[in-house]
Amino acid sequence: MVRIFSAQYRWAKMFEVEYAACEFWQQEGKLSIRDLVRLREAFGKVTLSEIARREARTRHEILAFLEALEARLGFGDPLKRYLHYGLTSSDILDTALALQVREATGLLLEGWKRIAGRLAQLAKKYSRTAMVGRTHGIHAEPITFGGKLAGWFSEAQRNLVRLKQAREILSYGKLSGAVGTHVYHSPQFEARVLRRLGLRPEPVSTQVIPRDRHAEYFCALALSACAVERFALEIRHLQRTEVREVEEPFGKGQKGSSAMPHKRNPVLCENLAGLARLVRGYLSAILENCALWHERDISHSSVERVAFSDGVILLDFMLWRFLSILDGLRVYPENMKRNLEASRGLVFSQKILHALLEKGIEREQAYLWVQKDAGKAWESGLSFQEIFGRNPKARRIFGGREKVQRLFALDGYFKRTRSILRRAGIR
Amino acid sequence: MVRIFSAQYRWAKMFEVEYAACEFWQQEGKLSIRDLVRLREAFGKVTLSEIARREARTRHEILAFLEALEARLGFGDPLKRYLHYGLTSSDILDTALALQVREATGLLLEGWKRIAGRLAQLAKKYSRTAMVGRTHGIHAEPITFGGKLAGWFSEAQRNLVRLKQAREILSYGKLSGAVGTHVYHSPQFEARVLRRLGLRPEPVSTQVIPRDRHAEYFCALALSACAVERFALEIRHLQRTEVREVEEPFGKGQKGSSAMPHKRNPVLCENLAGLARLVRGYLSAILENCALWHERDISHSSVERVAFSDGVILLDFMLWRFLSILDGLRVYPENMKRNLEASRGLVFSQKILHALLEKGIEREQAYLWVQKDAGKAWESGLSFQEIFGRNPKARRIFGGREKVQRLFALDGYFKRTRSILRRAGIR
Amino acid sequence: MVRIFSAQYRWAKMFEVEYAACEFWQQEGKLSIRDLVRLREAFGKVTLSEIARREARTRHEILAFLEALEARLGFGDPLKRYLHYGLTSSDILDTALALQVREATGLLLEGWKRIAGRLAQLAKKYSRTAMVGRTHGIHAEPITFGGKLAGWFSEAQRNLVRLKQAREILSYGKLSGAVGTHVYHSPQFEARVLRRLGLRPEPVSTQVIPRDRHAEYFCALALSACAVERFALEIRHLQRTEVREVEEPFGKGQKGSSAMPHKRNPVLCENLAGLARLVRGYLSAILENCALWHERDISHSSVERVAFSDGVILLDFMLWRFLSILDGLRVYPENMKRNLEASRGLVFSQKILHALLEKGIEREQAYLWVQKDAGKAWESGLSFQEIFGRNPKARRIFGGREKVQRLFALDGYFKRTRSILRRAGIR
Amino acid sequence: MVRIFSAQYRWAKMFEVEYAACEFWQQEGKLSIRDLVRLREAFGKVTLSEIARREARTRHEILAFLEALEARLGFGDPLKRYLHYGLTSSDILDTALALQVREATGLLLEGWKRIAGRLAQLAKKYSRTAMVGRTHGIHAEPITFGGKLAGWFSEAQRNLVRLKQAREILSYGKLSGAVGTHVYHSPQFEARVLRRLGLRPEPVSTQVIPRDRHAEYFCALALSACAVERFALEIRHLQRTEVREVEEPFGKGQKGSSAMPHKRNPVLCENLAGLARLVRGYLSAILENCALWHERDISHSSVERVAFSDGVILLDFMLWRFLSILDGLRVYPENMKRNLEASRGLVFSQKILHALLEKGIEREQAYLWVQKDAGKAWESGLSFQEIFGRNPKARRIFGGREKVQRLFALDGYFKRTRSILRRAGIR
Repeated sequence: MVRIFSAQYRWAKMFEVEYAACEFWQQEGKLSIRDLVRLREAFGKVTLSEIARREARTRHEILAFLEALEARLGFGDPLKRYLHYGLTSSDILDTALALQVREATGLLLEGWKRIAGRLAQLAKKYSRTAMVGRTHGIHAEPITFGGKLAGWFSEAQRNLVRLKQAREILSYGKLSGAVGTHVYHSPQFEARVLRRLGLRPEPVSTQVIPRDRHAEYFCALALSACAVERFALEIRHLQRTEVREVEEPFGKGQKGSSAMPHKRNPVLCENLAGLARLVRGYLSAILENCALWHERDISHSSVERVAFSDGVILLDFMLWRFLSILDGLRVYPENMKRNLEASRGLVFSQKILHALLEKGIEREQAYLWVQKDAGKAWESGLSFQEIFGRNPKARRIFGGREKVQRLFALDGYFKRTRSILRRAGIR
Repeated sequence: MVRIFSAQYRWAKMFEVEYAACEFWQQEGKLSIRDLVRLREAFGKVTLSEIARREARTRHEILAFLEALEARLGFGDPLKRYLHYGLTSSDILDTALALQVREATGLLLEGWKRIAGRLAQLAKKYSRTAMVGRTHGIHAEPITFGGKLAGWFSEAQRNLVRLKQAREILSYGKLSGAVGTHVYHSPQFEARVLRRLGLRPEPVSTQVIPRDRHAEYFCALALSACAVERFALEIRHLQRTEVREVEEPFGKGQKGSSAMPHKRNPVLCENLAGLARLVRGYLSAILENCALWHERDISHSSVERVAFSDGVILLDFMLWRFLSILDGLRVYPENMKRNLEASRGLVFSQKILHALLEKGIEREQAYLWVQKDAGKAWESGLSFQEIFGRNPKARRIFGGREKVQRLFALDGYFKRTRSILRRAGIR
Repeated sequence: MVRIFSAQYRWAKMFEVEYAACEFWQQEGKLSIRDLVRLREAFGKVTLSEIARREARTRHEILAFLEALEARLGFGDPLKRYLHYGLTSSDILDTALALQVREATGLLLEGWKRIAGRLAQLAKKYSRTAMVGRTHGIHAEPITFGGKLAGWFSEAQRNLVRLKQAREILSYGKLSGAVGTHVYHSPQFEARVLRRLGLRPEPVSTQVIPRDRHAEYFCALALSACAVERFALEIRHLQRTEVREVEEPFGKGQKGSSAMPHKRNPVLCENLAGLARLVRGYLSAILENCALWHERDISHSSVERVAFSDGVILLDFMLWRFLSILDGLRVYPENMKRNLEASRGLVFSQKILHALLEKGIEREQAYLWVQKDAGKAWESGLSFQEIFGRNPKARRIFGGREKVQRLFALDGYFKRTRSILRRAGIR
Repeated sequence: MVRIFSAQYRWAKMFEVEYAACEFWQQEGKLSIRDLVRLREAFGKVTLSEIARREARTRHEILAFLEALEARLGFGDPLKRYLHYGLTSSDILDTALALQVREATGLLLEGWKRIAGRLAQLAKKYSRTAMVGRTHGIHAEPITFGGKLAGWFSEAQRNLVRLKQAREILSYGKLSGAVGTHVYHSPQFEARVLRRLGLRPEPVSTQVIPRDRHAEYFCALALSACAVERFALEIRHLQRTEVREVEEPFGKGQKGSSAMPHKRNPVLCENLAGLARLVRGYLSAILENCALWHERDISHSSVERVAFSDGVILLDFMLWRFLSILDGLRVYPENMKRNLEASRGLVFSQKILHALLEKGIEREQAYLWVQKDAGKAWESGLSFQEIFGRNPKARRIFGGREKVQRLFALDGYFKRTRSILRRAGIR
């Protein structure tokens, strides 16, 4: 990914655009195959440092690049005439950026695909592993760890869709000249050259591709980052000392703290949380690029130089780091069980409530009863199961103490897990 | 739009969800048609103030709402049992929000459709109206005002696509109970009730619909706001005193300034620019909602209460205000012509450059020549046409002074405008 | 606070500015005291609806306001001449906004002062209450709850300083006329009128007060919101079922969940977390207001209308809600003790490390030893104290098993708490 | 600036902190001067690559660094005992960051000081250079270019104050150990070591310096960036082809466009506008760092690594680039005059209004009159001066046509400029 956003690679993509335009001229009979070969050879000799040197003078990178190429061409060379003919810098820059981003997105998609695949495996593996579901950080009702992972899988799938759409939205080039008027080339020229590059022509370009495309692309990046942040946050929560249901991998020889050797800190996940903030920050900047002046100003350029490469590289890093976390994830089902039971029956309160409704008790009355007993359990630390079970009225309604006790069981909670997994697309 | 986000309407949507669940029970034979009628009647009697009063005590709006409904039902009423049966508050809240947003998006789409329609008309009307294209705020080459508007039309179309996709992404409901485990209802129950409401079931819900959907939706809002900002910025630029090619409508009786009566300020467009900043700000907040704790925390709720209603209402306002600006837009073709000619031929510099290339002059040499003459014209204020035309070498190359003069003409610049409009979908 | 940002109050402040200017004219002998009385009477009769009605026509609120006032004045009235004489709308708007914000900030400061006071009390009260300090969510070393609260107190103090500075930075008015040139009034006029209002003159105004002041003010708001978010986040963490060291207040009759009656959810703190996101979002928007065009454009106005009133009102709400949380905060020292002991000695690992260093063991060696034993304890769930104590080498170094055991004690950890509190300014 | 944020420099600062702690031990008689010399020598031999190699294993940079140092110390060396004694990684990291930022801020202040100095010179130079003031992009009233620059000077001064305050707010270190309890060192130790480094002790630290300080610091950075953005925006506006009152420097040999050689584009200023967006984006990320978990989590670290170094370096670049723009700024007073006169008297409309008021005409009547004539001039393109002067009523009121004409003059507009400059602090 770093390679895709290197200066070297960027110039290679820009050359590809210029070259594709020259291929058009070859097909039109204006250049020979031999000319194309020479052009590629000339490019092979241009170095980054030469471009930089020329740019220092011209303060215009595309002109510096063309100068460097032309310096390799002979006097009266037809290439000198057809190279960059009728094009403007942005034709090259924006089209090359589209090529870069398309490739980069391929890597991001690969990351998400592997994450989704790993999540599907883990979701199946832990589809019967009971744990407590938590809302507001408070124990709620039993769930399975597999079900939780299925939710992540589902979000991963959504991000695959988003990034594919985002790639489409940026798979547009333009070769419409200085202010988009196609004065020197027909829309057909543009369409043919871009098709060769695998891109579509921007229907109405100005000097540039309109920046709402880039902003839309970045929205997808930010949403991907938010997804990783969400998963990382969950692992951080589950790794808390008091919870310890899951731990991110901890390398041999790794040291948790300079002062407290025992610590296993979820530093990888915390790192991911921080990176998500950065990606969101870049989005703020990119969104401001949409409203350029007239047929363009160049304020977007500095933003894109930083935010596009850093943003995409950071997200890529996030995806692969998260994948490695999944690969080494330590799961502690016994701790999940311990936590589930720690509330001593309170997680069944809704089940009891429903059982009372089933027996014909009115909701308001049932609610107050359960609330009272649950509150007592919560405050005193006693078992809700016991408090409720001791109540003669409960025994009467359900037909004996034993039947009351049987309500406090996990059966029934997980009967839908498999079908949820299937609905999410995990098979 | 304000109505859709009113408390009244919100409760109506929440009732719709509860009612649709009861319809399921009616179909299952648990409730009668008569029960459904009574339920609707009961809802008709519940007032906002009653819910507020009950909420002040319970600090839980859904429970307050249910209490208010149940207070209208008789002792032992079967509705008491089936109303909200097996559901959790978020089942109602998130599903109702989806209904609200879907309707709201319909209005936003209507706004964009009208804008796009108006832009298509204007683009055609001004497809031969020449003006100067500007990059960096500096005169570049001739364009047409219609071509500029076609670019806006094209962006409007993209926003229609985005908002439609965004509406899809939020057309999901959930009735999976407290932590998404479907303990009390099967996924089939959920699917049937939601289908009745025109929604799809969330494949894997927690206590809530995952918030990446809402964030994705908001990205589309922000992009729409950025588009309006871009168009408004352009009008502001074109309305500058020195430019004055276009003016936003200025009402009769309207006063431009308390001190300077003559002023026609683009205040509507400036207002739109400010509102776009707000919508982007809301997006920042909404993006942070994705990473909720475990099966949910409720930190997203305060953000959504403000950002969703304010964000959607603001965008709606922006769209309709922008439409009214388009409706009353004053266009001054003669000023466009004046500005185009003000550079005294400099806008043709690229044309000259190309003409020299066509005549076989090498690029570097041609560039330097044009640059020198253009620079002289720019610095001195003299006409580029004249400076270039006076050069004997130019006359020799092109075959006489008259032929040189003929290069400085608009013919050729606009030959593609029609086909660009067609490519954008304007017919 | 809502009152300060009401339309009524805003007009009252704007009138104050106009009135103070007329007082200047009275002192200069141009108006009589009687005129001032009449002016105030005239204002007393102007209603919001009348201004609104006039604004609908003029689309200019200040002109509408002046019209409404002048409609109450007689033909040839000297007030007609001196009212608003030489001023421009922004003179009134910006100066009045400064007055509003200054008052509003007073309320915010009051909120922070009370919070700081309450935190100081609580910090002292719990200065000996041991709990486990956590880094990365993992048990680290013993701390006191009072020490934690002292950190909050210290941040509260910083926010008091910030808001006071922010108030200063916005205590500037301007009466320099249309584009800030003081054509119709001298800087002395401006200085005298503003002094009467308790404001300083902007050294160099354009048509408006430069917006970096407003942005700086908002930075202080955002930092306040972030502080409340931090405290709220901590309470949410400490209220987790597995931790349960602290709980936010839970009202009698309050219902935690429509499905799980027992739940005590930290919903107030979660609400605060969401509101902080919104305030940060407003800051994004406000920062974009700095770069206005030339002597001003009015794009900042719509942003400020929403962000200033909503931002300040939200922060005010946050402060008072947080104060009420502190007032009703439930603290469970016994649970703190339980959690502290749950790691079975691991929290003392650094102490052991240091004791080994004191005994002359090399750091690397000591570290490896403690790491090994701590790791064993962590993995096995056995007591670190026991594992380490069983080691004959440890007994030898420290002089017996009992002396080893004595290392695993809280004494020494809290000897600095009091002096830290004092250093923070808590007495 | 890049050097300050280099890895090399960062480690040097971290070593400074460790070294200062050892100096304390030397003063306490635990180490000799010779030990300190050896310590410095040891550090001199540690290379970046060695730290990196060790970090790859330990995944803990501070431990890697200490290992590298200790590898240079002999067996039983007292330095091994006292180096890092009782400290935790964050003690070093946060204190060293404060040292880095303090130095970096010095450079930023230097940048602003030079800008302010240059602005003061320019403001004086152009204090009598008339130009049109513009509000909403529309001609308003005459101003001077010097007065405009004085406003920039004043904002520059505010940013100097902000950055100084920001430097203070971050001039805090901490050596309070693992969770801030000062178990192994007294607050006196901390105070003495930090004083040696020129820092103050954080009153109540956790494992880290609380992050609201860093966020407050970054607010000052963002405000600085917004200021540069505002100035750059103004230059962009003034450089527009139609306006051309000012141009940013354009190098010899520089090429404006690959297609249009004549163009002088304000690319430096546009670049600054983009960079300001990035800095604001970093602020968003930094603000989210405030609410760390408990005594700290490490999510802030990745954000700070990127945002602090990139943010500070970008701002530094912005300041020096802006300074170079000021140094080479081209100012065209004759174009300012041309634009001022282009409205043919409309810029005097308020002066006429006031003159009518002075003559006893009622405001409403005067306003309507001026509005009518000004509107006519605006619509027709005729001279306002002429239209108004032709009116017999006007001649009657002012005592003859000549006296009416005399109203349309610049005298009176600039009489305050000098005193405004003085008030801003320009002498």
